[in-house]
Order: sequence, then structure tokens, then C-alpha cells
Amino acid sequence: MQKAVKQDGSFQQAYQALKIQVDAQLERAVNIPVPKDAGGGFTHEQHKRNYRAMHDAGILFQLSGQDKYAERAIELMLGYAEMYKDLPLHPKQKEQAPGRLFWQSLNEAVFLVYSIQGYDFVHDFATKEQRETIEQGLFRPMASFLSSESPQTFDKIHNHGTWATAAVGMTGLVLDESEWVEQALYGLDKSGTGGFMRQLDELFSPQGYYTEGPYYQRYALMPFVFFAKAVEVNQPERKIFEYRDNILLKAIDTTIQLSYNRLFFPINDAIKDKGIDTVELVYGVTIAYGLTNNPQLLDVAEQQQQVLLTGDGLKVAQAIDAGEAQPYHFASKEFGDGQDGKQGALVVMRANQDSQTNPEKHQALVFKATSQGMGHGHFDKLNWIFYDNGHEVVSDYGAARFLNVEAKYGGHYLRENNTYAKQTIAHNTLVVDQRSHFKGNTKRGNKYAPTVTLFASDDDVSLSSAFIDTAYKGVEMRRTQALVKVANRELPIVIDVFNVNSDKYHQYDLPLHFNGHLMDTSATLKTNNTSLAPLGKKDGYQHLWLTSEASLEQPLSKVTWLNDDRFYTMTTKATEDMTLLFTRTGANDPDFNLREDKAFIYRLEKAKNVDFVSLLELHGEYNPSKEYTLDAHSQLESLDYSVEDDVHVVRFKLAGSDAMLLAFVPEGKSDQQVKFSFNGQSYKFKGQYLLTTEQ
Amino acid sequence: MQKAVKQDGSFQQAYQALKIQVDAQLERAVNIPVPKDAGGGFTHEQHKRNYRAMHDAGILFQLSGQDKYAERAIELMLGYAEMYKDLPLHPKQKEQAPGRLFWQSLNEAVFLVYSIQGYDFVHDFATKEQRETIEQGLFRPMASFLSSESPQTFDKIHNHGTWATAAVGMTGLVLDESEWVEQALYGLDKSGTGGFMRQLDELFSPQGYYTEGPYYQRYALMPFVFFAKAVEVNQPERKIFEYRDNILLKAIDTTIQLSYNRLFFPINDAIKDKGIDTVELVYGVTIAYGLTNNPQLLDVAEQQQQVLLTGDGLKVAQAIDAGEAQPYHFASKEFGDGQDGKQGALVVMRANQDSQTNPEKHQALVFKATSQGMGHGHFDKLNWIFYDNGHEVVSDYGAARFLNVEAKYGGHYLRENNTYAKQTIAHNTLVVDQRSHFKGNTKRGNKYAPTVTLFASDDDVSLSSAFIDTAYKGVEMRRTQALVKVANRELPIVIDVFNVNSDKYHQYDLPLHFNGHLMDTSATLKTNNTSLAPLGKKDGYQHLWLTSEASLEQPLSKVTWLNDDRFYTMTTKATEDMTLLFTRTGANDPDFNLREDKAFIYRLEKAKNVDFVSLLELHGEYNPSKEYTLDAHSQLESLDYSVEDDVHVVRFKLAGSDAMLLAFVPEGKSDQQVKFSFNGQSYKFKGQYLLTTEQ
Repeated sequence: MQKAVKQDGSFQQAYQALKIQVDAQLERAVNIPVPKDAGGGFTHEQHKRNYRAMHDAGILFQLSGQDKYAERAIELMLGYAEMYKDLPLHPKQKEQAPGRLFWQSLNEAVFLVYSIQGYDFVHDFATKEQRETIEQGLFRPMASFLSSESPQTFDKIHNHGTWATAAVGMTGLVLDESEWVEQALYGLDKSGTGGFMRQLDELFSPQGYYTEGPYYQRYALMPFVFFAKAVEVNQPERKIFEYRDNILLKAIDTTIQLSYNRLFFPINDAIKDKGIDTVELVYGVTIAYGLTNNPQLLDVAEQQQQVLLTGDGLKVAQAIDAGEAQPYHFASKEFGDGQDGKQGALVVMRANQDSQTNPEKHQALVFKATSQGMGHGHFDKLNWIFYDNGHEVVSDYGAARFLNVEAKYGGHYLRENNTYAKQTIAHNTLVVDQRSHFKGNTKRGNKYAPTVTLFASDDDVSLSSAFIDTAYKGVEMRRTQALVKVANRELPIVIDVFNVNSDKYHQYDLPLHFNGHLMDTSATLKTNNTSLAPLGKKDGYQHLWLTSEASLEQPLSKVTWLNDDRFYTMTTKATEDMTLLFTRTGANDPDFNLREDKAFIYRLEKAKNVDFVSLLELHGEYNPSKEYTLDAHSQLESLDYSVEDDVHVVRFKLAGSDAMLLAFVPEGKSDQQVKFSFNGQSYKFKGQYLLTTEQ
Repeated sequence: MQKAVKQDGSFQQAYQALKIQVDAQLERAVNIPVPKDAGGGFTHEQHKRNYRAMHDAGILFQLSGQDKYAERAIELMLGYAEMYKDLPLHPKQKEQAPGRLFWQSLNEAVFLVYSIQGYDFVHDFATKEQRETIEQGLFRPMASFLSSESPQTFDKIHNHGTWATAAVGMTGLVLDESEWVEQALYGLDKSGTGGFMRQLDELFSPQGYYTEGPYYQRYALMPFVFFAKAVEVNQPERKIFEYRDNILLKAIDTTIQLSYNRLFFPINDAIKDKGIDTVELVYGVTIAYGLTNNPQLLDVAEQQQQVLLTGDGLKVAQAIDAGEAQPYHFASKEFGDGQDGKQGALVVMRANQDSQTNPEKHQALVFKATSQGMGHGHFDKLNWIFYDNGHEVVSDYGAARFLNVEAKYGGHYLRENNTYAKQTIAHNTLVVDQRSHFKGNTKRGNKYAPTVTLFASDDDVSLSSAFIDTAYKGVEMRRTQALVKVANRELPIVIDVFNVNSDKYHQYDLPLHFNGHLMDTSATLKTNNTSLAPLGKKDGYQHLWLTSEASLEQPLSKVTWLNDDRFYTMTTKATEDMTLLFTRTGANDPDFNLREDKAFIYRLEKAKNVDFVSLLELHGEYNPSKEYTLDAHSQLESLDYSVEDDVHVVRFKLAGSDAMLLAFVPEGKSDQQVKFSFNGQSYKFKGQYLLTTEQ
């Protein structure tokens, strides 16, 4: 590496960029303020800058051999050693476990992960006395604080626990405290009921899915790969990356898979700006490439545009410079949830994904049939998100939070995250009687997961079906979604069938949150022109202004909107007494915390068994620059649905194409031949589905 | 050119791209439908495709020499000749002058401009009989229809007139009808009271500004440059491009100047997606380069990413291929309005504009002190728009229109364009007694313009001041705006002083429409949580939901919002009885035609003389991807304003910088020394302004 920084290439560029940054820091005096501010405040950010400075100066010392870098890192560590040992709990402690330098101990663990690596880099340069001071004043008390003094967090099977165990374990490796390493790996009592290995067992599904969803998966990834890499280097005999059938490598790959146009799917509590260029995934991809030499990872690394100044980083940089990258393949896949992979699944269906460098041609349908995902989970069983043309077209609110913005509740999750973003109505799934799934109770939600009974994917169609009867007492919900290519059409369609069954009468609301500008509806709108009121009183309804309502006079109800330069039409089979509501967020939001998002909702005031059958078309082009508009109207002429025995059949006819049938057997996969008849013709297929032109 | 298409380069690429397109058309049969649809509908778009096809096939015939292209062009022309001669007025005629092929004659003129060029290309290939049929059936009747049969449009000094005269004049040049050329140049009666030369005299100011604003300027440009180029080639002795001190070249350059981050300033009726890559400006830039060889135009041409298959296009392509482009310079400049350049002005102030390829570093302040701009003008005297970081941060609604989208009122200007987008409250300027400027009467607005009394620009500050007392009877309005660089700060600030004087009591509303998410206010909000009502009944107020109001308890009222990754704080000196309102568009909008835009409004219920003094800061960084937030809070500690004799002084103090004074004499430019004292210190300067640190 010391050679590589003297040769042209992206590794050298990264080295020089870091050098410029750290050299500028060296011109300023060290500043270690007394902890005072919450997230986003000055002291919070300064301590974050300082742990990065210790880490980065350490790296530069290793690469350049120049004393000044080691001296700065040591100066910082001595400063912290002086302050830390007498530091009380942070004055701004919030609901989470408090730290001492930071308002939550989570940040403290991150501090230790970075600073102990910095210490490792400069350890041999420090005098014995300095080492004594730093270890006794900073690293030992901090490791104790995060382990034996915080047993709930340390032994918790949760990403806070991963950070704590990684921090303590890495400190153990650097300070040669094998007891700490054992505790980090197997829990405080070393029984294996807590600790890093247990986290590897439980936090990821066999497919590498982390139950909180991709936003927290990428966050959780960092301590996993940091600590595992440290173990791999120091104790290769543990073969930690091979553990549980390469679970860590699967977790890294799954994190990439759960993205579209470089951004993560924003399910559960997720900041929507996060994507594959986050530093956690830069480490993940770099370390994974170091282990596997998979050239598709270089494609991701190129898009991350960050080179790590590590051995693996050099390997990645040299391979990219040599042009070895190959296109990363995004798969249509069922990502099982839960330790056994059977607590529901996140199903991702993709079309035209091989043009992922042209995201405008690539579609992704995310069908969320996962388990609750713990405290950051949303009450959105059988929710979906749809992407096309580079954009999130059918959208999920994500989290109500402005990360690190003090004016917005200290940068913490906002009140509206609970009152709106987590609630069912904020998602694209069924709400019964205006109550959220599991009555909005996370504990209850954690107990139940949907069952995915069908997932299949071939060249023309991907489809999935899932079922849950525990979100509402006495109500069975099944949703089947398919992403279908249609002959003569460049863009696929989405079929969505939501079956609801109950013995009793309920109100059913099926919302769709869309990004874009409403163009047209087949219904006659009765818009509220001069007065707006909230749609309801609780469970998120209190945040929705009811802007318009309509009764459906036609058998097919169409809503068309424009997103960027493309039109989208959602056509839903109207049933008797169905009404259509339009809403906009913003009610009961005194501090303007919510974005202005829009939705339309199909409502049945009083029903028992209902099938919501819809088809989403992607069509046309709006080009105000070149002044033309193409195919602004829906081409769907008919949409029918019937069930015969176990076979569900959706028939659809688009202008200019033959009528098509999608038949599927949601339950009971078998190799037996399935027969059904439709419009007097008989059909047969093997497996769980058939896509065919009508005979 | 026939050689160039055989050599590698961007000209050849453009040729091959057009060839692929036209070859595909040749495989389909000619389709000339009977006119039926309005803008955006099938027959409308098909006739547009056909005129382009005649033009493009003609070019390909010239470049390739292949008969099939000439044959297709002639086939189309014969088809139109057959249909056109008996065609009645278009069935979907709207308020504009109707056409026969199209719902408005404007489109018909465009048809002729393109198709007559196509005819010119294939003229020699056609048989005598074909020529006879085409000229008698299509071009002669169409030229008559657009000239002698439509005298109001043809002789109108307006862009519809330019298209008509250009179409007829170009037809005269091709068909050798010198009478038509004379009429096109000097009006139907050839007196010069109408016609193209009069349009050159009147439609542009001496600085090349077109009174309708850049959106229509780029549209108007097309027939000007088409016809002028045709005259230049056929009758170079007219020296048409040198006419009126190179007015056409100035107009082309000004069109480029009136853009930010490639999009035109959306003043007046403007579709916001339009920018420098529009085909009109591709022609403009290409022809201008052909005449001037200005290498800065190549920078623009590169960004347009379109190469014309003309002689000038080849010249541009070769120069770009040879790397001769130089960075285009965006100026801080006063663009005088009106034939004499004295009917007000559009003032553009820029900072860091030399980093225009990094628009995130480039700021532009657009101060709209123009005249009304005819029928497409908005009632927004002394309005402003502000750009930073690639975005329109302080925004103008532009036009309420979805171009060519049939579902949206046939793609025409929407009802809400008149009821909202044109009204004063939709802009960032003063509304008196909830009535729009000139009572929303265009005729009255056309009579009066503001007077720009100050414009200056140096390395540290650009500033301008303008005055109008005719927008409201008995109310004098003066606004002074400055874009100021502050020591130690990378990003400039904006100073805004709005003086209002009246003998009588009025209600004053000063709105600011912002793009982004509200972060913080110094006022205590009283948000309307459970019910919204419109802010008023007419003049645009009926479209604004009043979302929140606040009384101002502090001497400086601050509103902070987040746009992309940067914070903006508008600080306004609170005066007694001033209140702060927040609004959102959407009321009385039954078809969801309006975008959801946000504004805050400073209101004085009853006042005579008021100075609204504000300062806009650009600050900090929100980086949720890398999880840090910097400088989210305003740094402005104090803001003072006083007037002594003719000298206005704004004093402002930002944390970490010295207190600064901006002194200006809005009226009466002279070389005499100006003296004033402030806080007991005396200052002097020459000219109209002084920016200095406080002594």
C-alpha cells in the first residue's frame, strides 16, 4: 500500500484526498468539547469528527510513515483519556440507553470502533507511558462502560448490540484482552445466549435479510463487517466469514439487492436519501471483494465512488483501474425474513433490470410480506412499492425524521413518525375499520408474520402471493402481485389482487400513495374547494386532509398521474358501493414535520368479502421541452377476475394486444397438472401459474 | 456536408441518427388524417410528425442523394395538396385564430416553415407536374391563408405574427414570389407598419430582451432565425443579421443568459421544463456560431447535445470535435425591456457564475422590473426569483399548463393560469388590499412599466433598485435587491428592501414562495390543525389554503427551510402589528390542476408607509447519507435599516464576520461624492453604493 500511494490510480487519488483533508485538520488545534448537545449539535458533531480524525490520521501514518499523523492521533486520544474517565452520563440523554460522550451509547460504540482502529495504527509509535494513559483513561473504561456496565445493550440481539460487541471485541483484539473478545463473540456470560455469533445466527435470515429492513441492514452491517474482518485477520482459524453458509457475504449482497437506482427501499423507519454509497456498504463491498474477487462487486464499488485506504481497498482500486468490473445483476427474488427465513419475506420483482445503468428502463416491485421488524417496523403487512423510470412511483413515506437537524426534535424520530409514518394508512395496503394492523401494537406485531405461499419468476412474469389473518381479528387478507411483460409493449404492467374475507361487516380502505401530478380520473370528482377536514381521528387518518371524493359510475375506475415524463394509470375494478377518496398529508401537523404526500383510497363502508383487483399501466411520454405528448391515456379495455376451485384467473385486454390471462394457484405448490376453464375454453398448466393469451 | 457524413465525428453521428429515424418512417405508410383533435391529440401530433418528416426526408435526400427520401417527401406533399385545398377551419378551434390543419393558425405557420424547407430540398427532384400540384394545392393556398386571409395575425407585432411572416416569406423565397417576401418583411401593405422588420424593431429591446420573457423569447426566436437565415442566403445584400446593431445575435445570446442550470427563468406564462436544449435555441446557437465563430457558443452547443444537419451545424460539430469550446460566461446584467430598452428591465445578478458547470456553487437572482409583457405577462411588478445549488429556491409558479396533455384542458393554458398563476399573490412581490397589480387588467398593465434607477455590479456586490407607482393607485413601491459576498463565507447573501408609501391605509402582503421543507421559525406558529379555509376570495387568494399564522414576538423574524442538502433562512425585520402567514396552494382547484406550492406571507393589516427589510442566508449542509448536518441555524445576529437624506443604509452582522454596511442611493446617479453618517461614524463614496465593514 505504501507503494500504491506513489503510483497513479484511484488508490493514490483517495490517499491524496484524505491527506488534504487531514492536513487541513492538523492546522487547527485539537478541540475536545465537554459533551453538551444532542444529535446534530456542535459537541455531538465534533466528537464524531474527532473519532474519524483518529482513524484517518492513523491510516495516513501507516501509509506515509510521517510522524505528524501519529502525533495528532495520539494527542486526540490523550485528550479523551483525560476527559473520559470522570465523565458522567450525557446531559441530553433521551429514551435510548445514554452514553457519556454522546446522548446515546450507540454513538459511543461507534466512537470506539473507529478510535480503537486508529489506536491500532499508531500503537507502536506511542510511548509506553502514552499507551498506559490512553488505555487506562479511554479505551478500557469505554469498553467496560459498553459491556459489563451496559449488559442490556451488550447482550441485546439488535443492531445496538452489534455495535457494542464489535466495539468491545475489536478493543479486545487490539489490547490483547481475549476475555473481551470471547464476551463480544458469545455474550457477557460467554454462554452464547448473547454476543456477536448469536447475532449472526438470529439477525439475518438464511437469505441474508435483516428483519428491520435495508435502511437498518446497511447500518447494522458496519459493525458486523468491521469486527468480522478484525477477527479474520487476527484469528483466521475461526473462519468467521464462512459461518452459517457465508451469512455475512449474503447479508452484504442482499443490502445491494434491496435498492433501486442506488437508493435503498424505504420500508420501515428509513431515511429515503440513503443508498448504496453509504460508508457502511463501501466497507461491506470492499471487504466482500477482498474475500470473493466477484467482479460484479466492482460495478457497485464504482458507483460508490469511494476507495478505502486498506488492503482490500487497494485490491478494489486496482481491479477497477484495470477495467475488471462486470455489471451487477439485480435479481427477482424472495428474501425470507426471520432466523429460519420463514417469518414472511420481502419479495422483489424486477423487469428490464439488465439495463440498470439506465434506470429509466428498469422496474422494481417491492412486495412487503415481512415480519414486523421490531421497534422500527411499520404496520404495513402486504404493502408494496413500485419503481420505474428512476423514480419511486408508488411510494412509501419512510421515516418522519430529519437526521441530525436540531430544530426538528433534535434530529430524532419525529412525533409524526409514530402517529403517521408507522401507521397502516400511510402505506399501500388494506386498513380495516380505520385501525392499523395489530392495533398499532409492536409487541403484537412482532408475534405474527404473513405466509408467502407463492413466488415465481421467469422471463415474462414474476409473481408472489402472501397471506395473513392476524393483522385484524377475524379478517383474512391475501394479496397476489405480478409484474408482467406484455407482447408489443416495452413497459411491463403490474397486476394486484387483494382478497379480503370476514364473517362480519367492516369498513375497508385500500390506499395508494403516488408520486406525481394527478392527470385524470374516470370518476367524477367532488373536490372540497373551500374547506378541508381530516379524514379521521387516529391511526394516521388525523394527518390526512380529505381533498376530494367520488362515486364510481363506471365498471373500471381509472386514476392517471404524471411522474417526470411518464404517465401511470391504476385501474381498479369497481364494486358496488365503492367510493374513491383523495388525500394529502398535513393535517394535525403543527410544526410542518410531514412532507406533502398524496394518495387515493378505495373505500367500502360496509362489506364482508371483497376482491380488490387492479392493474397498473406505465405509458406514454410527456415532453414539454420538445413539445410532444404520447399515449397519455390508459390502453386497458377490460379487466376481469374469477376464481374456480383453487385457480384464480385475471383476464386483461390492452388496446393493440391480445387479451391475456394470468392464472395462479396461490396455495399448495405441486407438480400436478392444473386445469381450469375460462370463457368456455379450457386451459392447463403445471406449477402455480400460467400467463397466456386468451384462446 | 456530403463528405462529412462519411467521416467519423458528431456530424456523422447526427446524420446516422436521423437516417435511422427516417428509415423507420419509410417502412410505414404515409398517414395524413383528416384534422380532428386539439393539441396533444392524434391528428394534431400526426400532422406535426408529417411536417418534420418532409423537412427531415428533404435533408437526407440532400446529404445522401438517395431518391427514396425525396420520393417520401413528395408523396407527403402531394397528399397534403390533395387534402388542403378544400379543408375548412379546424373543428376544435379555440380562442386563438383558427387554422385548418391545426386548431390554431400558429401551428399552421410552423407547418409551413418546416415543409417549405423540405420542398426546397426536393424541388429539383420533383416532376414539373408534381411541383404544380404541390404548389397550387398546398403551399400557395397555405401562404394565402396565413397572409392575406389572416391580416390580423400576419400584421400583428407578436410571435404569432413572426411565425406567419417567416412562413410566408420563406415560401416566397422558395417559390420565387418576391411580393410575398416584401409583404413578409414590411407587412401586407408593404408600408413597414407590420411585418418582420417592424417585429425586429419592436419585439426586442436594444439588449435583445423579448418582452414576453425567455419562455416565449426562445419560441419567438425560431421563425426569426429561420427566416433571417433564408434571407441572408438568398439576399445577402439586406445584411439582415447586422440590422439594428446585430439585434438578432443579441436576442440569441440573451436567451441563453436568461437561464440557470440549463433551464429558462420561468417568468410570465412559462413551462418550467424548458431550457437551452430546446430546438429553437439549437438553431439559434448554430446559426449564431456560423456568423460569429464565438467559441463560447460551442459550450452551449455541447450542452444542447444536438447537431443540426446544415452547413452551420457541420461547422459547430467540427469545432466541438476539435475541442474549441470555451466556457460560456453568464453575466450580471440589466436587460432593458421595450423597444427603447427603457420600459423597465429584467435584472440578473449572479455570484460564483464561473463555476456554472458546477451549478451547486452558482447563484442567480432574477429581479423582475419588466413591463407587463403582453397577454402572457403576469401581474408581478418587482418580483424576484432566486437560484442556488442547482435549484430554484425562491420560486415563480410559471404557467399553469400541461402542454399537449388532452386531459388537462386539451393541453391549453388552464383556467388556474388566469385565476392563480398570473395573479400577484402567486409571486414574490407586494399585494395591496388583496388585489393584483393593475387590478389584474392586462391592458392597463401594458401601459405602465417600473423604472430601474440603479444597477451596478462589481466583484463583491450586484445590486439594483426599481420603482413603480402605477400598479396601485396612490401607492408607491420601490424595491432594492443586492447579492452580496461576505468575507469568510463561501456563499453570498441577498438583501431585499421593499419600501411602500401611501397617504391612505392599506393592507400589505409580501409573500415568498419557497421550494423545500420548512425547518424552523422564530415565531410561534398557530397552525390550523383540523380545518383549512382559503385565504381569500379572488385574485389568486382563493387558491391558497391558510395553513398557519403567527404573531412575531422577536425583532427579527426568521424562517428556515431545507432545499436538497442546503438550508435557507429568510430574516425579516418585524414591525409593529406584522403577522406571518403560511399557505399552500390547492383550494378551489376542483381538478387538481395546481402544483402543491408553499409560501409564507408577511402581512400588515393597516398601514401607510412600510419598509420590508429582509436578508436571505444560504447555509450549512444536510447530509443524511453521510449522517451529518452542518450550520443548520441562521448566523444573522442583527439587521438594521435607516435612510438619511437620499442614502439608504442596511447594516447586518453575521456571527464570525464583521458588521457590514450596504449604503445605496437608489435615485440620481452622479459622480459627486456622497456622505452619510451611521452610528456616529461618517462614510463617503462615489457613485450609487458602498459596501463596507462598519467602522
